[in-house]
Amino acid sequence: MFVIKIGGSLLFDDKEQINDKLISKYAKTIRNVVNETKKKCAIVVGGGKLARKYITSSRKLGASESYNDIMGIEAAKLNARLLIGALDGIAYPNPPNSFLEFQKLYNLTEKIIVCGGFQPGQSTNAVAASIAELTSAEKLVNLTDVDGVYTEDPDKNPNAKLLEEMPIDDLLELISKHETKAGQYPLFDNTAVQIIQRSKIALQFVNGSNPDNLKKALLGEKIGTLITF
Amino acid sequence: MFVIKIGGSLLFDDKEQINDKLISKYAKTIRNVVNETKKKCAIVVGGGKLARKYITSSRKLGASESYNDIMGIEAAKLNARLLIGALDGIAYPNPPNSFLEFQKLYNLTEKIIVCGGFQPGQSTNAVAASIAELTSAEKLVNLTDVDGVYTEDPDKNPNAKLLEEMPIDDLLELISKHETKAGQYPLFDNTAVQIIQRSKIALQFVNGSNPDNLKKALLGEKIGTLITF
Amino acid sequence: MFVIKIGGSLLFDDKEQINDKLISKYAKTIRNVVNETKKKCAIVVGGGKLARKYITSSRKLGASESYNDIMGIEAAKLNARLLIGALDGIAYPNPPNSFLEFQKLYNLTEKIIVCGGFQPGQSTNAVAASIAELTSAEKLVNLTDVDGVYTEDPDKNPNAKLLEEMPIDDLLELISKHETKAGQYPLFDNTAVQIIQRSKIALQFVNGSNPDNLKKALLGEKIGTLITF
Amino acid sequence: MFVIKIGGSLLFDDKEQINDKLISKYAKTIRNVVNETKKKCAIVVGGGKLARKYITSSRKLGASESYNDIMGIEAAKLNARLLIGALDGIAYPNPPNSFLEFQKLYNLTEKIIVCGGFQPGQSTNAVAASIAELTSAEKLVNLTDVDGVYTEDPDKNPNAKLLEEMPIDDLLELISKHETKAGQYPLFDNTAVQIIQRSKIALQFVNGSNPDNLKKALLGEKIGTLITF
Amino acid sequence: MFVIKIGGSLLFDDKEQINDKLISKYAKTIRNVVNETKKKCAIVVGGGKLARKYITSSRKLGASESYNDIMGIEAAKLNARLLIGALDGIAYPNPPNSFLEFQKLYNLTEKIIVCGGFQPGQSTNAVAASIAELTSAEKLVNLTDVDGVYTEDPDKNPNAKLLEEMPIDDLLELISKHETKAGQYPLFDNTAVQIIQRSKIALQFVNGSNPDNLKKALLGEKIGTLITF
Amino acid sequence: MFVIKIGGSLLFDDKEQINDKLISKYAKTIRNVVNETKKKCAIVVGGGKLARKYITSSRKLGASESYNDIMGIEAAKLNARLLIGALDGIAYPNPPNSFLEFQKLYNLTEKIIVCGGFQPGQSTNAVAASIAELTSAEKLVNLTDVDGVYTEDPDKNPNAKLLEEMPIDDLLELISKHETKAGQYPLFDNTAVQIIQRSKIALQFVNGSNPDNLKKALLGEKIGTLITF
Repeated sequence: MFVIKIGGSLLFDDKEQINDKLISKYAKTIRNVVNETKKKCAIVVGGGKLARKYITSSRKLGASESYNDIMGIEAAKLNARLLIGALDGIAYPNPPNSFLEFQKLYNLTEKIIVCGGFQPGQSTNAVAASIAELTSAEKLVNLTDVDGVYTEDPDKNPNAKLLEEMPIDDLLELISKHETKAGQYPLFDNTAVQIIQRSKIALQFVNGSNPDNLKKALLGEKIGTLITF
Repeated sequence: MFVIKIGGSLLFDDKEQINDKLISKYAKTIRNVVNETKKKCAIVVGGGKLARKYITSSRKLGASESYNDIMGIEAAKLNARLLIGALDGIAYPNPPNSFLEFQKLYNLTEKIIVCGGFQPGQSTNAVAASIAELTSAEKLVNLTDVDGVYTEDPDKNPNAKLLEEMPIDDLLELISKHETKAGQYPLFDNTAVQIIQRSKIALQFVNGSNPDNLKKALLGEKIGTLITF
Repeated sequence: MFVIKIGGSLLFDDKEQINDKLISKYAKTIRNVVNETKKKCAIVVGGGKLARKYITSSRKLGASESYNDIMGIEAAKLNARLLIGALDGIAYPNPPNSFLEFQKLYNLTEKIIVCGGFQPGQSTNAVAASIAELTSAEKLVNLTDVDGVYTEDPDKNPNAKLLEEMPIDDLLELISKHETKAGQYPLFDNTAVQIIQRSKIALQFVNGSNPDNLKKALLGEKIGTLITF
Repeated sequence: MFVIKIGGSLLFDDKEQINDKLISKYAKTIRNVVNETKKKCAIVVGGGKLARKYITSSRKLGASESYNDIMGIEAAKLNARLLIGALDGIAYPNPPNSFLEFQKLYNLTEKIIVCGGFQPGQSTNAVAASIAELTSAEKLVNLTDVDGVYTEDPDKNPNAKLLEEMPIDDLLELISKHETKAGQYPLFDNTAVQIIQRSKIALQFVNGSNPDNLKKALLGEKIGTLITF
Repeated sequence: MFVIKIGGSLLFDDKEQINDKLISKYAKTIRNVVNETKKKCAIVVGGGKLARKYITSSRKLGASESYNDIMGIEAAKLNARLLIGALDGIAYPNPPNSFLEFQKLYNLTEKIIVCGGFQPGQSTNAVAASIAELTSAEKLVNLTDVDGVYTEDPDKNPNAKLLEEMPIDDLLELISKHETKAGQYPLFDNTAVQIIQRSKIALQFVNGSNPDNLKKALLGEKIGTLITF
Repeated sequence: MFVIKIGGSLLFDDKEQINDKLISKYAKTIRNVVNETKKKCAIVVGGGKLARKYITSSRKLGASESYNDIMGIEAAKLNARLLIGALDGIAYPNPPNSFLEFQKLYNLTEKIIVCGGFQPGQSTNAVAASIAELTSAEKLVNLTDVDGVYTEDPDKNPNAKLLEEMPIDDLLELISKHETKAGQYPLFDNTAVQIIQRSKIALQFVNGSNPDNLKKALLGEKIGTLITF
């Protein structure tokens, strides 16, 4: 079992247009890996710019933070449906509405289950971690638009070095430094890391701009940053 | 009971941005009318530009027409959630996923139920008509970005006259002239009109750019085009 | 994937008794074809005389047209259960309550899903068409008590000729001539044909009094009328 | 809270036609009583001749006894929908599919919930008893086509006397004498009586050919046979 | 198909502690038998001391008998989850909430479905019987803490002899002698036996203190008491 | 709207017996406050010793941490049902299975909704916080077996002082000091506090050994520790 988190940042280009070419490439890569490895797979898709747009409007319209999170979840599920369409025949057609529904589907079908979010107060990263724990996944690949975890912020210090491996305790410390604001989650949020830690899930941060990186991560090649225990 | 269909064209401006000011005004208008008339109300929201965007990508990704319709339905439901957020406290928090779910909710709550679509092959206009029939609604107001039905296409003939009233048979004839393509529905589709006809629902086409028009229609003033039997 | 529509007229004899012999033969034919072809199959069963009986009473009791349609849908589902019973072991035990539920079941089981209707304002023919579209069915066989489509009404003109093939546009025209009344659908209703047309589904009208005809149609033999694009 | 069991024998005439006049009268009687007493009410409708017809066919088609019971349950639910249609506006629109669903609906709505059966191996009388227990109903009225419980079988002995009251232990003894065959339940089955007994529910057997008798029973007049503790 | 009923008495030791060693052994035995026989299997777990504890408190808190039964059902489901955890990978993760849900799951998965109860007024023995009937199970093994059915109560008469076989009519008579009190069911309750009788289910009473006995019963060895028809 | 979290530690005495007297008192207190204030109310009940017992066995049986959390959630829901039984008539009869289900119920009923947990990786404190946020609760009262938050651990330092008020930032810092192990949550976990912080929920820690303290907290009296922003 693999769990793949596709960050919302990968789904849209600079003009807020859907990056259907990349989505199509991901669908092909995932089809290939599933075919080759004969393994089950679950995918969590982020909300990205669509989520931010609808959350912004929702907030202007006076909705609560809880409701704004729901807007983000539903936007992520709409994005998830694009990938489902591209995985026609091997993906279950609807993103689950709750952890419980995911659990049921996981037990009823061999198809790929593509998720958005589950409930307010929980990032799609936490969704991915909880799914990986439930399914005793051998790997959780986290795809974003950066190459992995650096010794320092690479935007600020050009000498920052990409870490091939990182102990879970360092990840916890790194995360605790970030202030958490609603809708803005750092690399990986607290709840997610606690699940990773207690169940020792093989979490790997990979640059998702190139779908080949996903394949490398799933097949066990060194790429991005791997969390160690 | 009122049923209100808000066309997707009203929800976005020319730059694909969400028209949250108009949505906010609609929420206020609806709150006022509901307060004044003490009547129940259901709303159907269209998919608009968001639907077209996701359908276009879905089609590029190779999905079936049935699945593309589902993308449109889910986009409409995401739009519906914006209005729900703005109607906080007096609207049920989730758009129903099927006619059956609408029927259940309608019987369990006095709150406003805001819908997107129900199933492929059915426009949000048909959704609105079927809801109006189920609830024996006294009026179905259809809000779009035009003033109503004209004697001719006003874009082609500046002398075209807005019709205050239109017999249902003329509407049927008008609609049968349009060719139907997937995702592109004319003024009101065939199934919708058949329901209107068999249950003699008071259908009124109104320009929704100004929410005051909705109030006028609901309170029985002459505005737009009223279908007669 | 095959989709089979069994018209309600085939399920009852002249004395309103259930034609269990024919149902039994259908079950055997379908078991055989499924066994031989190793293909999936979905079946839509009409409401027939049971539906008309309950709709008539429902109308007398003052129910709305929407509710009367629901009576017809539930009657069709009761009929569907007879066929399910006869297909014990290879059919899913309950008719789905909505398009969404059909979609879920279709993705979770290889079993035959036997449906009645889904929602008011939609004939069981439209249900069959929408299912055929969703599942990219290679054929939709429509079984009624006539041999197919004729050049003219064979009851009025004994020289009327059965058409082996019929272009979809001719079918559309043929249908548009019929007036539509609640509960009485012609050969195939408008919504159904629009779905057939946009997704180019291989629709075949066949006389279902003899279940062998179903086998012939599924195995690609010439029988009844085939719609062409 | 009242619970009313309407025996299937009351719903059809000798020619298997729906007795819509009697159903209509029941709807009026129930509306009146609910209006006058301001009390909640649940109704259980039997399957009657429709159930027997579909069970007979189902059995011929080779279905299991469990499945045959399901046919009976669904037939009872179709009958229940007729009464629901006649109680438009004050009845919940769908018969619940399980005890659990009844319990949920009972807690969510003041409307009348009209039930058929819940699960195989359980008569609609047991359904009525379990509902009466759950809701702490002040009375369970059982309507059949006989006047109540007699000292002997009135068909065999014309001197048989109708009992105004009957101790629960006598009822238990009476029932234990009947052999139980699938689909054929005596006056009241064992499970039902055990529930009646343990929760001391005021059960009254009344002749339902005349809906006025229902009114009398609900308003506390002496009619038929009342079970005592 | 096998159906296994594990009596609640087997799940706890004298100090109300969970007998996890025995549960673990059962899980291994069931894994082995399923592997060897390639047969499907459903399990019903009783509520035992947990149920009695929560029912006692519930009754003290003033709940109805119906609600007390629900407490027992939910306690049985919590026990069922322990066995599910031990059968990780081959058991469906949640006990079904109704007969209908069991039926759906049974048709959607090859996994072992582990049940508690379904609805008030029905013992877990009746649940096991109704499941065995639905699935046309070849055997229903009933595990308790006694060796089977005796000629007399072995606690009272040390000469009581264990019956290798027992005709169903004798079982019916035996059961009718017991008084039934809420929450206290004898060997097998009335409804359960009626289902066993009408569908001629091969019911075997076996001492469950030793899981090997289950294996023997499932593989057709003589052990405990077998009901004959 | 009030949200009340009743810690599992309050539900059992030292001998693992259910503290039904305290539960009964809580039911009375809550009835009174709801009657007096005419405000809605939701309650979250912890798993306590029952949860720990079943988690311990589940872990021994080899289940995953995710599954162990589910055992804890279900145990909490069984506890919740005791309170529901005691609140008969004013509480919804089943604890919701997910945040989504809570949201639906909250919109459909005025009754008190009593919850256990929702999903693995989330404490019942986080459930309470997310519910308080969704419902814009005016107060979230957290009942445990201690008097509130102290300047130091009162077990270690007898001079530790109870804080009447505590800034949210101090609470965050206090929590970050605790190591988090599966199943063992400190005063209030991280996710819970983040929700409290972003939506400025009036959180109050109160000693729940005396139900009067709950009443004081709900009516605005100074008791325990109030978190300030």
